[in-house]
Amino acid sequence: MKKKQLNIGLVGLGVVGSSVAKILKNNQNLIAARAGCNIVIKKAAIKNIAKAREGFDFPITNNVKEVLEDKDIDIIVELAGGVEEAFNIAQQALKKSKAFVTANKAMLAYHRYELEQIAGNLPIGFEASVAGGIPIIKALRDGLGANHILSIYGIINGTCNYILTKMKNEGVEYQEVLKEAQKLGYAENDPSFDVEGFDCVHKLLILASIAYGINAKPEEVLTQGITEITQEDITFAKEFGYHLKLLGIAKKNGEEVELRVHPTFLPQDAMIGKVDGVMNAISVVGDNVGETLYYGAGAGGDATASAVISDIIEIARTKSSPMLGFKNSIDKDLHLKPFLQISSAYYLRILVLDKPGVLAQIATILGEEGISINTCLQSPSKLKNHSTLLLSTHTCTESKIRNALEKIHNLEVTQDKPVMIRIEKP
Amino acid sequence: MKKKQLNIGLVGLGVVGSSVAKILKNNQNLIAARAGCNIVIKKAAIKNIAKAREGFDFPITNNVKEVLEDKDIDIIVELAGGVEEAFNIAQQALKKSKAFVTANKAMLAYHRYELEQIAGNLPIGFEASVAGGIPIIKALRDGLGANHILSIYGIINGTCNYILTKMKNEGVEYQEVLKEAQKLGYAENDPSFDVEGFDCVHKLLILASIAYGINAKPEEVLTQGITEITQEDITFAKEFGYHLKLLGIAKKNGEEVELRVHPTFLPQDAMIGKVDGVMNAISVVGDNVGETLYYGAGAGGDATASAVISDIIEIARTKSSPMLGFKNSIDKDLHLKPFLQISSAYYLRILVLDKPGVLAQIATILGEEGISINTCLQSPSKLKNHSTLLLSTHTCTESKIRNALEKIHNLEVTQDKPVMIRIEKP
Repeated sequence: MKKKQLNIGLVGLGVVGSSVAKILKNNQNLIAARAGCNIVIKKAAIKNIAKAREGFDFPITNNVKEVLEDKDIDIIVELAGGVEEAFNIAQQALKKSKAFVTANKAMLAYHRYELEQIAGNLPIGFEASVAGGIPIIKALRDGLGANHILSIYGIINGTCNYILTKMKNEGVEYQEVLKEAQKLGYAENDPSFDVEGFDCVHKLLILASIAYGINAKPEEVLTQGITEITQEDITFAKEFGYHLKLLGIAKKNGEEVELRVHPTFLPQDAMIGKVDGVMNAISVVGDNVGETLYYGAGAGGDATASAVISDIIEIARTKSSPMLGFKNSIDKDLHLKPFLQISSAYYLRILVLDKPGVLAQIATILGEEGISINTCLQSPSKLKNHSTLLLSTHTCTESKIRNALEKIHNLEVTQDKPVMIRIEKP
Repeated sequence: MKKKQLNIGLVGLGVVGSSVAKILKNNQNLIAARAGCNIVIKKAAIKNIAKAREGFDFPITNNVKEVLEDKDIDIIVELAGGVEEAFNIAQQALKKSKAFVTANKAMLAYHRYELEQIAGNLPIGFEASVAGGIPIIKALRDGLGANHILSIYGIINGTCNYILTKMKNEGVEYQEVLKEAQKLGYAENDPSFDVEGFDCVHKLLILASIAYGINAKPEEVLTQGITEITQEDITFAKEFGYHLKLLGIAKKNGEEVELRVHPTFLPQDAMIGKVDGVMNAISVVGDNVGETLYYGAGAGGDATASAVISDIIEIARTKSSPMLGFKNSIDKDLHLKPFLQISSAYYLRILVLDKPGVLAQIATILGEEGISINTCLQSPSKLKNHSTLLLSTHTCTESKIRNALEKIHNLEVTQDKPVMIRIEKP
């Protein structure tokens, strides 16, 4: 696209869309110098025209077709959200030979491979779909192209990282921190999409596609959120030298790729464990480059818009990188490891009655499953006549620990569903 | 370059060159899938053919012309080093319409703008010239294109970071750690290029060109190495909550850009201060994206080769990004801030005779220059009848602190050249 001006059609003009418009205006000269042409919003479409804010210098319509069918528009930038709706917009844009840029991780989690196929040689940008302003898509796809990716560890949900950081620093329980995060706008009124790990899963799938070319679905990813974390777990982390983080993890073992999202204990000297507050970071280990890590704001209008515009500049520069990083498919396709076969070390928190022989019963079950204990800490519970057992294990499979946990849960002395958190040493 | 095979001519086959050859072979299928074509080393040139290692499956010559003039070679990869010699090779490669990839930071520190001009539309890659395997050039040039860069803080010399980390962790003095670093191969026999900050300067100039389009020379950069750091400075850092790092700093204030390389105290919660050992990291603050940080191995054959190959893949994918990130020049060129006008907070270590009125004399000098004191710590020196004064100041200009230091140095009670370290709060 060697033109003097590139025309954008915006679909959606919420927080991110408004930031895109603002930055394209404020940094107009800089962006034109970097892109080699002027970048101008020709028209925007929003659902409810009555809600349109003022102060934009381009026409706004509530008929998305007006944008999609405008022959002068070169790139459709989709920032409206929704899965099927957004996929439909993408298809229409590509059918009209327009480039397509999106920040929509949910749509990509389900439709990224269809999209790549439909696109053909038309450029598709989605830098903003993972970790906001951090250019992790470009880093993985372009910067680390010489490497087999051995692992990805990502703090890719700012809400969860904020909550876990507050729990660590202030010693307060999950529910209390959640309320505060909701007040500050760091968590939604219905926080489940974030705190149950689903948002993380969407982003992890996008990263895994670029790293491994693997086409997995959200439902296939081992997923555990942070809602069961308590101060006891934080205490354990401090006691044994760990940081506790919600991670999205992708790992390659031979021809298998494992994908998982769960709270994770990390050694205190692991760089990614040092990332606190709402910040995001992704640690990528390549077979040649070793570990690289990318850190920054994972959300927010301006940071996300920064990523959206980087895609627009890339398109303006006539780049035709393949959307998911592979120009041809690799010889042998990797396949997803069934998650019951994934191995990890585990931490267990078990509420038991305080009576003789309890530890022996639990240790016996673990022994029967071939799981060996690494550390053990028993302390009186706040509940009368109850104890809390904090155990950590050596490495075993997900399947074994699940069997053991079920047996432990069924013990008469066990007073609540045991909580399990994975321990990783990147 | 849409071909089924892309032929590389290697100039230099030392540590990095050998790694490039090894990785292109080992990861052949992966790299071909990412690049869209096979990438093959057609020929390599080295200076001393007698030193050629065995086991390469391509011809090796000691006549660089054979490589430069081979019509089948598409890309010249220069990994031989030297400034004018390498620049000459680049010129010849471009004259023959070959793309050019280099890891040579010294050559770029002097000739990057000439090179960009000579190149025209031919691709030039230099990802490996700064921070080894970290894809910081692509991040700055492509990922953050929508942003005015407000500042860059870089730990871009692994040798210095290793030495400072050891000094902090083990309480030993500079000379002792240097010797150990030399034994381990982390420092050269003549370490001055690293420890005096010159290596950092070269890399900083490359980053500053991409961020600001500024054409400064190494001699114009405020430069201070780490050779004067002692355990007293480390103690100060611990006492007042700082990390001590050698940083390359680029900052924009209005129409001025400041460039500097010096040991720097950083608040303990600054992410970049947490980067220890031989690792590198670059923190970049953009006006929209906020802070992003890039972390990884800054040296080593395989990590550097990973960056070299990422450039080759980019070229194979027919990308024509402008070498230094701007397709057109921006309206108004930024200019370099004279370094005497740069402002900072300062830490001073002054060895004085232990007698009445000494602190008053020094405080008076600082007062006369309009410099206000923030913290002050006086303790007996190891030398009999001597004291060490550790002072930190509020912000003032380089010019003022230099005047004050000269006056303090000339005091009769001052027993050695005072040491000054800058304090930054990113």
